[in-house]
Amino acid sequence: MTPDLPLLPDPHLPGLTRALRGHDQTGAEIEIDVVEERPLTIFLNSQEIVTAMTIGDYPDYLALGFLRNQGMLREDDVVTGIDHDDELETVVVRTARQTSYEEKLRKKTRTSGCAVGTVFGDMMEGLEGVTLPAAELRTSWLYALARQINTLPSLYLAAGAIHGTVLCQRERVLVYMEDVGRHNAVDKIAGYMLRHRVPAGDKILYTTGRLTSEMVIKTAMMGIPVLASRSGFTAWGVEIARQLGLTLIGRMRGQRFVCLAGEERLIRDADLAAVGDEDRRHRRKGAEE
Amino acid sequence: MTPDLPLLPDPHLPGLTRALRGHDQTGAEIEIDVVEERPLTIFLNSQEIVTAMTIGDYPDYLALGFLRNQGMLREDDVVTGIDHDDELETVVVRTARQTSYEEKLRKKTRTSGCAVGTVFGDMMEGLEGVTLPAAELRTSWLYALARQINTLPSLYLAAGAIHGTVLCQRERVLVYMEDVGRHNAVDKIAGYMLRHRVPAGDKILYTTGRLTSEMVIKTAMMGIPVLASRSGFTAWGVEIARQLGLTLIGRMRGQRFVCLAGEERLIRDADLAAVGDEDRRHRRKGAEE
Repeated sequence: MTPDLPLLPDPHLPGLTRALRGHDQTGAEIEIDVVEERPLTIFLNSQEIVTAMTIGDYPDYLALGFLRNQGMLREDDVVTGIDHDDELETVVVRTARQTSYEEKLRKKTRTSGCAVGTVFGDMMEGLEGVTLPAAELRTSWLYALARQINTLPSLYLAAGAIHGTVLCQRERVLVYMEDVGRHNAVDKIAGYMLRHRVPAGDKILYTTGRLTSEMVIKTAMMGIPVLASRSGFTAWGVEIARQLGLTLIGRMRGQRFVCLAGEERLIRDADLAAVGDEDRRHRRKGAEE
Repeated sequence: MTPDLPLLPDPHLPGLTRALRGHDQTGAEIEIDVVEERPLTIFLNSQEIVTAMTIGDYPDYLALGFLRNQGMLREDDVVTGIDHDDELETVVVRTARQTSYEEKLRKKTRTSGCAVGTVFGDMMEGLEGVTLPAAELRTSWLYALARQINTLPSLYLAAGAIHGTVLCQRERVLVYMEDVGRHNAVDKIAGYMLRHRVPAGDKILYTTGRLTSEMVIKTAMMGIPVLASRSGFTAWGVEIARQLGLTLIGRMRGQRFVCLAGEERLIRDADLAAVGDEDRRHRRKGAEE
C-alpha cells in the first residue's frame, strides 16, 4: 500500500543520528547530533551488485531505485520480494525474471572500474529510449517549493552533513528523502516511484546538491522533466540536459535562479517583489558538501 | 622540480570553466561561468584502474594520489613516468615495479562493485600500519586559514559547484586544489605530496566538504594528523578518526567550530572576540553539494 503523502524526513527517528560528545571553540564540552553512515549491500536475486554508504532508512526504496537507475530492473520487471537484513546490512531484491549481470559488472570494471564510471556508463545506455514530456513549470511553484523545503524539519537542519532530494508536483512536496550517500537520496525517490507506480511526467525533482551529469541522467532515467537546485551546474550536466530536453534550474536563492536548459517549460507567473530575498536560515540549506 | 608555493587555484585558466547562456528569474538572457566535468581514465602501467569525473587540471597529481590512496602505489615505488593524453582523456602511471591488480579489482567488484565500496575496502586494508604523529594545532592557525581560504580567488567563488581541499602548515596555505569530482581534490593533494616528497606530520588538511569516513581515511592514509572543515560530520567518520587518533574539526563558521576527535592536539590561543562572526561572503563558502 502507498504511504500517506507527503512523506517527510523524521529527524527523531531512532538510528539515523547519534549524539556525540566533543568540545567547542571555547573548550566547553558539548554534545551534538551526527548523522549515521553505514554500508548496505544490495543483491539482485542471487547476485551481489553494490555496497552503498547510506544513512540507513528506506533500504527497500534505495535498492529498488538504485537497480532501476542502473537499468538492471526493467519497467516491466515483476518484483516478487524485497528482504532487508538489518544485522547483515544487506537487502535482496527478487524478480520473476532471471537476472544475471556478471558480464555487465565485469565489463564495467574493465572499462571504468568505479561507480561514477559504472553508473554513468550504464545510464547512458539506458537513455536512448528516454523522451521527456512537455510540461508546465510555474515560477510560483518553484518559490513555494523552495520555501517549504528550506523550512520543513529535516535531518539537514538537525545534524547537517546530508543531501536532500524532493519529489514535487506543482507547488506540493510529495516525497522528501535525505541521505549521507551522494546519490542515495535520489535513488530512494526512484524506488518509491517504481514501487508505487507514480507517474513522472508531471513531477519536479528538487535537490540540495549540484547539477552534475549524473544527477541529470538519473532524473531523465526517472522520466522527470524538471530538475531544480539551489546549487550550481557542471558544463556536462547542462549539455546532457539540453540533449534530453530536460529543464534545468540552478542557483535558486530567494527570488534568484538561473535556467540553463529547457527554458520553454518556464512560466514566470510569480511576483518577484513578493518573493523577496531568503533569510539567514534559508541560506544555510545546502551548505554541506 | 617543485612548483613555487603557495599553489593556488587559477579561475582564469582556460578549459576549467565554460561560459553558458541562459535566463534568470526575470527572463533576461544571461551568461554564467560553469565548471567543466570530464572523464579521466587512470592506468597503472598496462592496467586500466578507474575512470574519474574531474575538472581536468593536474591529471598527473590526480592519478598519483588516487593510486597512492588506493594502496596501489607503495611509499617506495619508483615512478618512471606519467603520460597524460588530453585527447584520449587518459593518464598512465609507470612504475619500476611490475604491478597487477586484476585480482584485487575483480575481488572488489564482487564484494562491493562500486568506487565508494572499493575505495573504502582498499583503504581500510592500507590503514593497519598508519600511526599519526603528535602535533600542535593552534586555533589562531585555524582561524587564519579559514579567513584566507574563504577569500582567496577560486573556481568556487567564480563558478561554484566544486569542492576545495587545502594543504596547510601552521597558518600558511601551501596547496589549494579544487575539483568537481567528490574526492579528486584530496587525491590531487596526495599526488602533489607524493611527487614532491612533502612531509605530512606537520600539516593540516582543510576541506570544504563533509567529514565522512572516506575523507577521514584518505587523510590518515596521507599521514596528516589534522582534518578541518566548515561542513559537518558523519558518525562513522568520527569513529574512525578516534580509532586512528586523527584530530577532526568541523562546522567551522566564523569563530565557531566543533572538535569531535583528537582534542589533545588543540591549543586555544586565539582571541575569540577578535575573530568575530563570518560575513556573508564567507558564509557562501561550501554552499555547494
